[in-house]
Amino acid sequence: MSENTLAIGIDFGGTSVKAGVVRGAEIIDLAPPIATQDFEGPDQLIQVMARAVEDLRSRHEGIAAIGIGLPGFVDFKRGVVTNLTNVRGWIEIPLKEIFQSITGLPVTLDNDANCMAFAEYKLGAAKSYEHVICVALGTGVGGGVIADGKMIRGAKFGAGEIGQTSIDYQGRRGHYGNLGALEDYIGNQEISRDALRTYKAAGVFKDLEDCTPAALAIAAKHGDTIAIEHWNLVGRMLATAMMNACWLLNPEALVIGGGVARAGNLLFDPFREHLLSQLSGPFRDELAILPAAFGHEAGTIGAAALALDEAGFVNLT
Amino acid sequence: MSENTLAIGIDFGGTSVKAGVVRGAEIIDLAPPIATQDFEGPDQLIQVMARAVEDLRSRHEGIAAIGIGLPGFVDFKRGVVTNLTNVRGWIEIPLKEIFQSITGLPVTLDNDANCMAFAEYKLGAAKSYEHVICVALGTGVGGGVIADGKMIRGAKFGAGEIGQTSIDYQGRRGHYGNLGALEDYIGNQEISRDALRTYKAAGVFKDLEDCTPAALAIAAKHGDTIAIEHWNLVGRMLATAMMNACWLLNPEALVIGGGVARAGNLLFDPFREHLLSQLSGPFRDELAILPAAFGHEAGTIGAAALALDEAGFVNLT
Repeated sequence: MSENTLAIGIDFGGTSVKAGVVRGAEIIDLAPPIATQDFEGPDQLIQVMARAVEDLRSRHEGIAAIGIGLPGFVDFKRGVVTNLTNVRGWIEIPLKEIFQSITGLPVTLDNDANCMAFAEYKLGAAKSYEHVICVALGTGVGGGVIADGKMIRGAKFGAGEIGQTSIDYQGRRGHYGNLGALEDYIGNQEISRDALRTYKAAGVFKDLEDCTPAALAIAAKHGDTIAIEHWNLVGRMLATAMMNACWLLNPEALVIGGGVARAGNLLFDPFREHLLSQLSGPFRDELAILPAAFGHEAGTIGAAALALDEAGFVNLT
Repeated sequence: MSENTLAIGIDFGGTSVKAGVVRGAEIIDLAPPIATQDFEGPDQLIQVMARAVEDLRSRHEGIAAIGIGLPGFVDFKRGVVTNLTNVRGWIEIPLKEIFQSITGLPVTLDNDANCMAFAEYKLGAAKSYEHVICVALGTGVGGGVIADGKMIRGAKFGAGEIGQTSIDYQGRRGHYGNLGALEDYIGNQEISRDALRTYKAAGVFKDLEDCTPAALAIAAKHGDTIAIEHWNLVGRMLATAMMNACWLLNPEALVIGGGVARAGNLLFDPFREHLLSQLSGPFRDELAILPAAFGHEAGTIGAAALALDEAGFVNLT
C-alpha cells in the first residue's frame, strides 16, 4: 500500500530465470539464477521457480504480488504464455493461474521488453513522462510503448516490436519475412558482422570478436575511423526506426537501453543528430532522449512494479 | 443523448470550409462551402463560419455540439489551432474559445486526419474494433491511431503522421528533412511523377495528366503493365509503413481511405500481400484490412461525432 510494498519480480530469460525481491526501484534480495535450458519442459521449471519464490518469501514478510517477464508472446489479459521462441515446450502455458494457485498471490505476466519499458516509465529514466517509447538494444531489439500514461499492448499483446519495423522496404529479409527490419542491422551480432565486412573491404584484418559492440566502442574511442563510422551508421538506422515511432505516436521521451547502448555518445550523438533533423517542431522541440536508468535488473524491477500496479498498489518511489 | 442527437461538423480544408448538420453517420444538411483562400486571415473567415453555423441552427433544433477538423496542428486540449501550413494567418488561434463564446455550444477541434479516423472507428469501417490504424491517401498521406478504444494523440497532439514515416533510411529528403517519407512516394502527385518517369524510361509517351492515380487505375484495368506494376509498387510501399505501425501497435484493423484508395484491388491486393507476408501470427492472423466507409464526408461526420463524444453524448448508431 506504500512505497515500501514488496513484490517479487521474475526475469525469465532464454539463458536463466532470475527471481528477486523488489522494493521500489531496488532489488533487495535475489534467488540463485535457474538455468532455463536445464529443463525439458515447463512443469519441472515451474516447480523450481515456485521453490525460489517460496525461499524469498520465507526471508521477506509482506510480499504482495509476483510479476514475471518472459521472452516471447504473452497473453497479458488471460495470463497465458502463448509462445517462447527460444525455450522448448512453452506454448499455451497458463502460468498466471498456476502461480496464483501455488502462491496465493496476484500474479502478472508480460513480455520482457514491456517489463523493461514499465520499469523505466514508472521508476527510471522516464518517470516524469506520460508518452514514452523504450527500446532495448541487445541480441534482439525490443521495445515498449506508453501513451497517455498507459502501456500500449495492442489487440494480441504484441505491441512494441520496434526491432521488427523496417528501415528499408527493399532491405534484408528478416525472420518473419519482413524486409529491412531494424534488428537485422543493429542487433548485437549484425553489428559485428557488418563491421567485420567493412574492415575487410578496407583491407583491415579483424576477427569477429574484435567487432563486438564493446570492442567497436573501445576501437572508436581510440580513434578508429571505421569503428566511429559504424557507430554513426547504427545511430542513423536506430534514428530512422525511432523517428517513425515519433511521427506515429508523438512521444515526449525516448529511452534507449540494452548492452549496445553502453557505447554511450558514440551511439547517442549520431542518433540524436539524425533523429532531430528528421522531425518537425511539435515532435522535436521538447523530446527527451534518455539512456535507460536500469541495466540487467530492468526486467526484474519492471515485472515487480507491473505486478504491484496491476494488483492495485500505488508505488510512490 | 440518443442516437439522434445532432451536431455540426465543420471540415476546414485548404480549399473550402464545409459545415454540415450530422445525425449519426449521416449529413442531413450542408451549408454552402466557403472558399478558404478568399479571406485575408482568421477573423473574417471565423465570422463567415459562424454565420453558416447560425443558418444551420436556424433550420435544425437541438444541435448539441460543434466539431471542427483542421488541416494542420491543433492543440486538442486547449482547443487552439497551432498552425495551418497552407492557410495564411492561422497561427495560435484559440478557435474553441471563440466559437464557444459565439455559439454557446461545446466546441471540439482536431486534426482532419484524426476526424477521419474517428469517423471510421465510431461509425464506419472499423466500428467493431478497439485497436485501429486509419490512413487517408491523397495529396498528402495522413492517419489516425486508436488503441484500446482511445484516440492516441501524443504529447503535442501530433500523433498519426504515418505519411511522414520512412520506408527507406537512405530515401528522398522530405519536407521536414525526413528521408524516405511514405508521402514522398505515394502522395497523389508523387505517384503521377514516378509513373510518368517509368513510362518515359520504357519509351512510352505520356503526359502528367495521363498519370494521375485515377488515370493509372483505368490504364491498369485495361491491362497496361506499367500501370499495374506501379500500383504494385504503391501497395508495397504502403505495406511497409503499415507493417511498421502493426509491429509497433498490434492493431486489429487497418482502414485505408482517400482518393488514391479508389484504385480498389489494384492497390489493396498488392498491399495485402506485401503486408501479411511481413508479419507474424499475432499481428497477422486476425488483422482486418478495410476500405474506408466514408469518402469526402469523413471529415464532417468525424468532427461532429468527436464533438458529441467529447461533450459526453453517447452516439449509438
